[in-house]
Parts: sequence; C-alpha cells; structure tokens
Amino acid sequence: MSEKVKRTERIAAITRILSCNPGKLFTLSDFAQMFGAAKSSMSEDISMIESAIRKYNLGTLETLTGAAGGVRLRNYNIGLDNYQEVEKVAQMLRDPERVLPGNFLYWSDILSDPQIMRQMGAILASEFEEEKPDAVLTMETKGIPLAMMTADALSVPLVIARRNSKVYEGSAVNINYVTGNGRIETMALARRSLKPRQKVLVADDFMQVGGTVGGMVALMAEFECPVIGIAVMIAQDNIDRNSLPTHRSLLSYSGTVNGIPMVEPSAWLRPGGK
Amino acid sequence: MSEKVKRTERIAAITRILSCNPGKLFTLSDFAQMFGAAKSSMSEDISMIESAIRKYNLGTLETLTGAAGGVRLRNYNIGLDNYQEVEKVAQMLRDPERVLPGNFLYWSDILSDPQIMRQMGAILASEFEEEKPDAVLTMETKGIPLAMMTADALSVPLVIARRNSKVYEGSAVNINYVTGNGRIETMALARRSLKPRQKVLVADDFMQVGGTVGGMVALMAEFECPVIGIAVMIAQDNIDRNSLPTHRSLLSYSGTVNGIPMVEPSAWLRPGGK
Repeated sequence: MSEKVKRTERIAAITRILSCNPGKLFTLSDFAQMFGAAKSSMSEDISMIESAIRKYNLGTLETLTGAAGGVRLRNYNIGLDNYQEVEKVAQMLRDPERVLPGNFLYWSDILSDPQIMRQMGAILASEFEEEKPDAVLTMETKGIPLAMMTADALSVPLVIARRNSKVYEGSAVNINYVTGNGRIETMALARRSLKPRQKVLVADDFMQVGGTVGGMVALMAEFECPVIGIAVMIAQDNIDRNSLPTHRSLLSYSGTVNGIPMVEPSAWLRPGGK
Repeated sequence: MSEKVKRTERIAAITRILSCNPGKLFTLSDFAQMFGAAKSSMSEDISMIESAIRKYNLGTLETLTGAAGGVRLRNYNIGLDNYQEVEKVAQMLRDPERVLPGNFLYWSDILSDPQIMRQMGAILASEFEEEKPDAVLTMETKGIPLAMMTADALSVPLVIARRNSKVYEGSAVNINYVTGNGRIETMALARRSLKPRQKVLVADDFMQVGGTVGGMVALMAEFECPVIGIAVMIAQDNIDRNSLPTHRSLLSYSGTVNGIPMVEPSAWLRPGGK
C-alpha cells in the first residue's frame, strides 16, 4: 500500500512539474534524482501520465529518444470547453458599462488578465500547432499578453515589433503600413529577432480591416519568414480580408446596438463549426 | 488493478487540469462530472494531490469550503532550483555577442521568452505572495511579459500603464516622471484599472536609478493604492534606491568588462542568502 501511495504522489508531482514547465525537456535521470527512485519506475510513471494526458485530451506528452532525449509536455489543451470559455469572455464584453464615449469598447482589463489570456492563447495555439511555427510575432502593446500565452502554449519564442526602433535592440528593419483609419504608421523589429525561413504565427488583440496585421505580414517578407497564420482575439465582423493568410479570431464584434456591444464567439468555435 | 490504474490516470489528469488553470476554482462536482466518478473519490484524489504538491514544494493547493467552495492550485513554485535557473539566464546574458554599439545589452529575446519569463515570474511571485497583492502593475513595453507571468503566478490581474492615454481606455490619470537619463516622460493609466486601497506589486524589466519604477509608485499614490513591493528582472548594481519600497531583482548588472557583460544572480537568491 505504501508503494502505491508513493506512486500516486510521484505521478501528481511529475505531472505538476511537466505542466509548470511546458516545452521544457526533462530526462528520466532528472526525475530519478528528484524522487530518489529508479529510472525504470520513472519510465513507468511517465507512461501512465502519457496515457492519462492522451485519454482526457489534455495536451501532448512528447518523448524524445537518444542522447538529448527526455520527456516534455506541451500545453495545447487545458481540459475545458473552448466554445464555453470564449462565450464567458463574450458575456463580459457585452456589458453596456464597457461602452466609452466615441463608442469605443473598454477591454484592456480582459486583454491583460493572465488567466483569460492563458486560456485564449491555448485555444489559438491548438489551431496552429500543426503548422509548427518557430515564433509568434505581435506588435506592441495590447496584443502582447495574448501573443505571450499563445507562444507559451506552442513552446516557441515571442517576438515583439515596436513603434520605433530602440537603441538597445541594435540594427532594425522599419516598415510603414496603413492603419484601419487610414493613417500611415511605422513598425520596427530588431534584425536579430528572427532568421530567414523561420515560420511565424502573427498574433494581435484586434483586427478591423487588418492594417496592423498586414503590416506584420509585410515585415515578415523583409525577414524572409513565411507567415503560417494569424491568431486574433477579436475581429470586426463582415470585413473582407481575403488578401491575408489564414486567420482565426476567437470573437466577432459587430458594433453596438441599443448600447450593448454585439460580441459573439466566432463560428468555427461552435461544436461542429469547423 | 484496473481501479488502481484509473486512480493514477485521474490523479495525472486532475493535476494537469489544476496546473493549466492556476487560480481557477474547480468544484468536486466539476471533476466528478469530467471523470464520471463519485464526489467522494474525487475528494480522495484531491487529498493525494494536495499531499504530493506540499511534500515536493510544488505550490499551494487551496481548498475553499461552503457554497462557493472548491479547489484551486497556485503557481508559486515550479519545482526547480531558483538560483540555478537564474544563473542560466545570467550565463545567456554574459555572451559578448550581446553587447551593442553604445554599450547597450541586447536581451529583448530573453525578456519575451515565455518559458524563461514563466520561471522568473514564478520566483518573483513567491517573494511577494505573503503580501497578497491584488494586482501587478507595469509600464509598457519591455516589462509586460515578466509582469504578466508574475501576475499569473499570483493569480491576480495585470495592469499596464501606457506612454500616452488612449481614447479606447476612457478617462485616465497622467503623471510625469524623471527617467534615469534625466528626461521627463509621461505615463498614463485608465481610471477604471484599479480601485482605491487595492494592494499593488510593481514589476519591470530593468531598474537603473529607479525612475520608471518611482513613476509607477507616484502613479499608485494618485490611485490611493499601496505599493507592497517592486519586482524587477535586472537591476544595475551599487545604486542607492532607499527611497523606494521593498524591491527584489533577479539579476545584478555592473557594466561590461573586457567586452563581457557582468551579470550575476542577486545575492538573496543564493542558498541561505536571504
């Protein structure tokens, strides 16, 4: 019995360590040392964890063999109903108190909430994991938390374009782009941020006509980096963006009616909606 | 035997779900429904997980009783050696290739790496968890990923001050502050970001004389929010900052010698260093 208790304890502890360090490679020896147990027991524990994670659709436990071998857990799925979780955010956004003078919608609090962004990032990451991006790119400022959590779920680096090139980032590529309201703006990215042919997922908080996102796509052309997709938190409804690569937004926004913001989870999130 | 296997599977799955949703409250009924099992079995599973998490120092599993009761896992500790993990980052920073013209240090890649920021945020969060902050405040742009992960580990919202107040954030408080190089700059924060008397942890990527951080402290005075501490990734060595609230930096930087950046984990991180 005592042996069984130890096993359940180890299983909980190893699952916890793997989950808290998504994408980080642990060897059997790492765990054997932590728990003062044989590598063969660790191997059995990990098989059990792998089977549970797979069975309940809670991510992917990867086992790499060879000298650089080990085990790592990726963060794609967090065990919740995606449509339901996005609908909860939509409900928060439909609050008339959020409508500001000029008909702007206040949602900075949602965009920087770590728990919400973690969930939303995981959902977007799972949409693009098959394309195996090497990095996630966003443009400062509001999209950073979402992009960070998306990159975290994919276990890839985040790259942040700035409005101006900074002296502490070394040589940079600057491009101009046209925003949704017709102004010309600049974005800058340090040369050493990306290498040619790295595959990039573009992420942003809001997409109207797609000006900023289009700017990031143009910036990636300068870096010779293919854009494998665009991940967005909220997109304005009924706008033609056929010129852009594959894009997925979690929420659709179609303005304010009788003082209530019209925000819905995007159709592809509905059960059977893809 | 089949029952035993099911228990280990459930333990792994529940630990995974709790870890992927730090700070989120789950009821026994939530888990009973997910696994088609009795609430009493769920209660036993959770006791085992709680005991493992505590034994191996992997965070805090909180059990809340009553109508709003349930269980939630906080993210303070990720099962790694803090000093060793910070030293790994110091090693990355000691690379002479990182020194830019003008003697600036390139480290945007580290500041936006989700895995590194998750670890660093968890360490900083554990330093301030006892003060029970209600929110983490940072100033755009470079500190956002660290502040995000610190807020995530503490299960509190992140609040981001901007260089200018934005129309889509509603009424804002603007203050001026003096930067490390003597310039006067502005920071702005939406009125509805914080309520009076909320306790705030200030977070930033770099602290030289403490100008930006001091600006955030002054901003919090306007909001009538006490600052319970300052969490920083890297601080310049040997600078008197006695006017500031309690601050902890993970790394100390003392310039470049023979082309090599002098970066070390801060003394308090050393075993027995506190």
